[in-house]
Amino acid sequence: MTRIWEPENRFRIWFEIEAHACDAQAELGVIPKEAAKAVWERGQFEIARIDEIERETKHDVIAFLTNLAEHVGPMARFVHQGMTSSDVLDTCLAMQLKQAADLLLTDLDQLLAALKARAFEHKLTPTMGRSHGIHAEPTTFGLKLAGHYAAFDRAKKRLIAAREEIATCAISGAVGTFANIDPRVEEHVAKKLGLKPEPVSTQVIPRDRHAMFFATLGVIAGSIENLAIEIRHLQRSEVAEAEEYFSPGQKGSSAMPHKRNPVLTENVTGIARLIRGMVLPALEDVALWHERDISHSSVERVIGPDATIALDFALARMAGVVEKLVIYPAAMQRNLDLFGGLVHSQRVLLALTQAGMAREEAYQTVQRNAMKAWETRGDLLALLKQDPGVTAKLKPAELEALFDLGYHFKHVDAVFRRVFGGS
Amino acid sequence: MTRIWEPENRFRIWFEIEAHACDAQAELGVIPKEAAKAVWERGQFEIARIDEIERETKHDVIAFLTNLAEHVGPMARFVHQGMTSSDVLDTCLAMQLKQAADLLLTDLDQLLAALKARAFEHKLTPTMGRSHGIHAEPTTFGLKLAGHYAAFDRAKKRLIAAREEIATCAISGAVGTFANIDPRVEEHVAKKLGLKPEPVSTQVIPRDRHAMFFATLGVIAGSIENLAIEIRHLQRSEVAEAEEYFSPGQKGSSAMPHKRNPVLTENVTGIARLIRGMVLPALEDVALWHERDISHSSVERVIGPDATIALDFALARMAGVVEKLVIYPAAMQRNLDLFGGLVHSQRVLLALTQAGMAREEAYQTVQRNAMKAWETRGDLLALLKQDPGVTAKLKPAELEALFDLGYHFKHVDAVFRRVFGGS
Amino acid sequence: MTRIWEPENRFRIWFEIEAHACDAQAELGVIPKEAAKAVWERGQFEIARIDEIERETKHDVIAFLTNLAEHVGPMARFVHQGMTSSDVLDTCLAMQLKQAADLLLTDLDQLLAALKARAFEHKLTPTMGRSHGIHAEPTTFGLKLAGHYAAFDRAKKRLIAAREEIATCAISGAVGTFANIDPRVEEHVAKKLGLKPEPVSTQVIPRDRHAMFFATLGVIAGSIENLAIEIRHLQRSEVAEAEEYFSPGQKGSSAMPHKRNPVLTENVTGIARLIRGMVLPALEDVALWHERDISHSSVERVIGPDATIALDFALARMAGVVEKLVIYPAAMQRNLDLFGGLVHSQRVLLALTQAGMAREEAYQTVQRNAMKAWETRGDLLALLKQDPGVTAKLKPAELEALFDLGYHFKHVDAVFRRVFGGS
Amino acid sequence: MTRIWEPENRFRIWFEIEAHACDAQAELGVIPKEAAKAVWERGQFEIARIDEIERETKHDVIAFLTNLAEHVGPMARFVHQGMTSSDVLDTCLAMQLKQAADLLLTDLDQLLAALKARAFEHKLTPTMGRSHGIHAEPTTFGLKLAGHYAAFDRAKKRLIAAREEIATCAISGAVGTFANIDPRVEEHVAKKLGLKPEPVSTQVIPRDRHAMFFATLGVIAGSIENLAIEIRHLQRSEVAEAEEYFSPGQKGSSAMPHKRNPVLTENVTGIARLIRGMVLPALEDVALWHERDISHSSVERVIGPDATIALDFALARMAGVVEKLVIYPAAMQRNLDLFGGLVHSQRVLLALTQAGMAREEAYQTVQRNAMKAWETRGDLLALLKQDPGVTAKLKPAELEALFDLGYHFKHVDAVFRRVFGGS
Repeated sequence: MTRIWEPENRFRIWFEIEAHACDAQAELGVIPKEAAKAVWERGQFEIARIDEIERETKHDVIAFLTNLAEHVGPMARFVHQGMTSSDVLDTCLAMQLKQAADLLLTDLDQLLAALKARAFEHKLTPTMGRSHGIHAEPTTFGLKLAGHYAAFDRAKKRLIAAREEIATCAISGAVGTFANIDPRVEEHVAKKLGLKPEPVSTQVIPRDRHAMFFATLGVIAGSIENLAIEIRHLQRSEVAEAEEYFSPGQKGSSAMPHKRNPVLTENVTGIARLIRGMVLPALEDVALWHERDISHSSVERVIGPDATIALDFALARMAGVVEKLVIYPAAMQRNLDLFGGLVHSQRVLLALTQAGMAREEAYQTVQRNAMKAWETRGDLLALLKQDPGVTAKLKPAELEALFDLGYHFKHVDAVFRRVFGGS
Repeated sequence: MTRIWEPENRFRIWFEIEAHACDAQAELGVIPKEAAKAVWERGQFEIARIDEIERETKHDVIAFLTNLAEHVGPMARFVHQGMTSSDVLDTCLAMQLKQAADLLLTDLDQLLAALKARAFEHKLTPTMGRSHGIHAEPTTFGLKLAGHYAAFDRAKKRLIAAREEIATCAISGAVGTFANIDPRVEEHVAKKLGLKPEPVSTQVIPRDRHAMFFATLGVIAGSIENLAIEIRHLQRSEVAEAEEYFSPGQKGSSAMPHKRNPVLTENVTGIARLIRGMVLPALEDVALWHERDISHSSVERVIGPDATIALDFALARMAGVVEKLVIYPAAMQRNLDLFGGLVHSQRVLLALTQAGMAREEAYQTVQRNAMKAWETRGDLLALLKQDPGVTAKLKPAELEALFDLGYHFKHVDAVFRRVFGGS
Repeated sequence: MTRIWEPENRFRIWFEIEAHACDAQAELGVIPKEAAKAVWERGQFEIARIDEIERETKHDVIAFLTNLAEHVGPMARFVHQGMTSSDVLDTCLAMQLKQAADLLLTDLDQLLAALKARAFEHKLTPTMGRSHGIHAEPTTFGLKLAGHYAAFDRAKKRLIAAREEIATCAISGAVGTFANIDPRVEEHVAKKLGLKPEPVSTQVIPRDRHAMFFATLGVIAGSIENLAIEIRHLQRSEVAEAEEYFSPGQKGSSAMPHKRNPVLTENVTGIARLIRGMVLPALEDVALWHERDISHSSVERVIGPDATIALDFALARMAGVVEKLVIYPAAMQRNLDLFGGLVHSQRVLLALTQAGMAREEAYQTVQRNAMKAWETRGDLLALLKQDPGVTAKLKPAELEALFDLGYHFKHVDAVFRRVFGGS
Repeated sequence: MTRIWEPENRFRIWFEIEAHACDAQAELGVIPKEAAKAVWERGQFEIARIDEIERETKHDVIAFLTNLAEHVGPMARFVHQGMTSSDVLDTCLAMQLKQAADLLLTDLDQLLAALKARAFEHKLTPTMGRSHGIHAEPTTFGLKLAGHYAAFDRAKKRLIAAREEIATCAISGAVGTFANIDPRVEEHVAKKLGLKPEPVSTQVIPRDRHAMFFATLGVIAGSIENLAIEIRHLQRSEVAEAEEYFSPGQKGSSAMPHKRNPVLTENVTGIARLIRGMVLPALEDVALWHERDISHSSVERVIGPDATIALDFALARMAGVVEKLVIYPAAMQRNLDLFGGLVHSQRVLLALTQAGMAREEAYQTVQRNAMKAWETRGDLLALLKQDPGVTAKLKPAELEALFDLGYHFKHVDAVFRRVFGGS
């Protein structure tokens, strides 16, 4: 990902844009065919030399063209004809963001693969489902992971759409009128680079495209944070149901030798905040003045590399975390048993309702016993068996049947089919 | 748009969710068919009564169900069976956001129609193209508007995608396991409401969907701001090329009777900032704890209505502004002539290059004369005719031909075809 | 707080600004003394009438002045002389934000009082200190609360500074030159309203003041969220060390009767996100065009009330949560004992070092045993007594002494003195 | 500024923290005095070696201490006793932010000096005051700059307060209880480093301090943007009242030789967006889990350097822009004259009122003529002289006197005294 944003790649793309444009110009008879040939054959650039020229001209594209001309010779005067710097810069940025999106899609595939593998591995591993941080009802660890898989699957679709949006080419001249260059040049360059021609550019490619791109990264960062926080919660000392892999020789704390901390996911949580923060300047960039101002440039020079590199890092890190996540089914069962079957309270509620008790009365009956079990870390089943209101409606055996964990997992297959396909 | 967010609409949707769910439950034999029938026939609600009950129970869905039961009678105990509050709340929010998106799409269509009409009206009205706020080269006012049309056309595509993403239905029970309700209930309700079943919900519909929805609104707000700022620039006293319609009787300033201010577009600029600010909490909402926490709720209760109402207002306002925009072609021409043909400098540069002058030398030659014209608000053509470096390469008549405005507009048709279609 | 933002209060402040300005103008001999007298004596306004006039003029201050004139009579022509609408609007907003800050300071005092009371109540209640969500070393619950007290004490100082910044008065005319009004008018009005004269206004009071105000609210929201999240963590089923007060009759879940959820602090977490989101538009408002544009107005009309009302609500809610927080010292002790003294690992490390073992070796020795205790939920002390590396350096009695909880609390008094003062 | 964030400075501060802590520990008799002496005398570090060790331990402070021990020898076991990594890291970050604030204050002083010099230079240079981008009333260019001076003077006060807030020292051990270290060590280190002891730390220094620091940078960035946008507006082709200095040899556009663009201020506009975007993650960092989690770290590793370096760059750039700003008083006068005295409309309004005309009638009278002048770029004075409604109240000579520019500047001195002091 870093390589995409290095000068070498940038100037390489600039060169290709100019050279393809020369081909089209030559084909149209605007410049000699030998000029186009000369550019491809003798065209070279040296980063140090470009930097040197830029220090004088304070203009990067002119510096590049000057350096290029040093290699191409007199034919170089046909290069860049009718074009403006932004034709090169914006088309190049589109290419870089497209390349970045390709890498991020690869990262997503890796994370999806990791999530899928672990989801199937723990498809029926019982674990506590929690709402508000409070024990709710049982679920399976595989279902948890399936949910995150589905989120990253959506992330992938969004990123593909964002890549599509960003991948346009503009070779339209000073204010986008094609006054000095034929639209067919743009079409040729676009085709060669795998981009689409920008329908109407105004020297620059409109920045709502970039805003959408970075906003999409921000949403994906949110899904990463969601997964990261799940793991951080599971690793809490009192929960201890899963743990980031802790390599031998690693130290959790310089002062406390017993520590094993979820530092990878904490780190990723912070990265998600950073990426979110980069959405804002991208949104502000949309409202450029008239046909363009260059305020977007300092923003993109930072968030272009920073947001994509950070997301690349975070996705790769999360793939690694999921692949190597140490999962403790026994601890999950221990937590499920913490309040003596409290999680089955809804089933009892429903059974009482079906046995003819009014919903409101059933609710109060179950709540009364559940609160007692909660406060004493007691045994809900035992309490219910002693409650005359309950026993009037349900026999002991019926009550016991309501405390069966398997009851909750009968539709896991159906959900997995929805998420992962298959039949 | 306001109506979508009023209690009446919310409870109406709640009722439909519960009633459709009863139908499906009855069909599956889980509850009596008469129960489902009773709900549809006798089901009613009173907002005041729900509020009253909620004050005691501090739980809105329970309050609603209690009120509903007061009408439906004993059969009401079959309502909501196996469901959890979020099944109702989240599916309802999905419906509301879908309804909001529909309205916003109508707004967009109105704005697009206004932009298209004015774009064709001024397809060939010459106006100055400006980069960095500085005169660049001529363009047409129609091309400017075509660019904004294309941006809102993209906005429409994005909003359609966001609506698609948000329009899911979850009836999956306490932690999304369908433990107490068959997935076919969800499928039935989804179908009836025009939604898709959420592949894997965890009591709640995952919040990356909502984040994407509000992020999309933020991007659209950026495009609105872009158009608003263009108009504000054009209305500047020194530019004065276009003006918001100023109705008789209106006062621009309590102190300065001569003022006519672009207050509508300034207002919309501020609204864009507000909507952007609402993207952030939506992005932060993604990382709920475990199967869900309810921190998203206070956020959505505000930004759900506020962001959609603000965007609805802003889009409608901008449509009105564009429809009634007072456009001054004569002022555009006056500004085009401000520096005696300075905007043709690039054509001269190209002509010198084609006449055999080295690009670098041609650039310096034209820049030298252009700077003089700039500083003196002088006449570039006259200056060039006196420059021996120029006259050695180009005859007076050739120079004059380079100062033809029409030259810049030969591809306007091509761009219009790209944007508006046609041949 | 809501009352501050209602039309009644706004027009009341407008009236006072105009009337005080008349006094100063009369004192300077610019207008007749009877005019000033007439304004105070006969000056009235009716909200409905103002609205009616505004519908025609589309200008709120002119509507107000027209309505005022209907009461004051011919002398009304001396009102508002030399002033511009913003003189009224911006000075009024300054007053409203100052009033809002006063209320927020009262809220802060209430929260501080609650935190202080509970901090002293649990000054020496042992509880687990956690870093990374992992058990670290013992602390006291009072120390936890003292930390939050200190944070809100800083919040108070910041809010006082922000109130100071925002409390300025501008009566400087059309572009702030005092062309038609003497600076002494501004000084008089400022003094009467308890504001400072704005050193240099440009029709508007500069918006960096407002940005600072709302940014300060955003930081305070962060501290609220910090406390809210602490409580949410403590209420987690597996931790269960503290709980929001749960009133009789309250229902945690429509489906699960056993649920008691930290909904107040979750709600406040979302509110913190909202307030953070409102910082952004306030920051963007700073860069108004030239002497002013009115884009800030639509922003402030929303975030002025919304941010202050939300923060007022959140602070009051948190004060209530802390006051009534149900605290379980026994559960805290249970969690302290969860891993058989693991939290004392650092003391053992230090003791080994002091007994002459190299730090690195000591670290590995303790880590080895700690990890075993962690994985087996075993007894660290017992393990250490069996480790020859340890017993070579420390006698059993010495080891036992290292597992004393009281050891950690010897400086609690010192910290309390720092935070709450006293000796 | 870059140097502050380089490893050399970071490790240098770490060393000083550890060494000062050893002094205090030795003074308290906790460690031998020779140990403290050895640290100061033999203490060294090599960045490459630290990196090497960190690759194995994955813990930066342990790597540093290990490297330090290689130089100090056996006495090194007394280093860091009772401390935790965060004691070093957080105190170091406080030092770095304090150093950064010092540099930023120097930048602010430079910008303030430039603004003051130019303000006095153009104290009475007449220029158009504009609200809504529309000509309002005359002001002076010096007054414009005085306003920006006042804003940056406030920025300075805020930054001093933010520096004060951030400059705290924490040496309090694992969870901030001072269990293994005496609070006097913290007090000693704080004093030596020019910091204040953190009243209550919880392993980490509370992050509301950092949030406030970065929020303050965000507000300052807003003021920078405000000044940058003013200059960009003034440089617009149609306005052309001021220009960024354009060095010989510089090229404004590769295609259009006539271009001179305000690229420095556009660049700074983008930087302001970036800094604003970094406020958000800092605000989100406040709510760390329990005594701390490390999610803030990845955020601060980026925004610590990035926000301070960007602001340093932007302030220095703006100081340079202001110092070298090319100011065109003649162009200012040309724009003042653009609508034939339209800007004096308010004075006419007041004069008519004082001559006995009802305010409402006077407003309509002036507006009628002003609109005509506006639309025709005509001469307001001439129009008024022909309006019977006006001439009934004011004689020609009286009217002419109302069109005196000097009238507007009589209080410029008073405002300058408020802003720059003096008498």
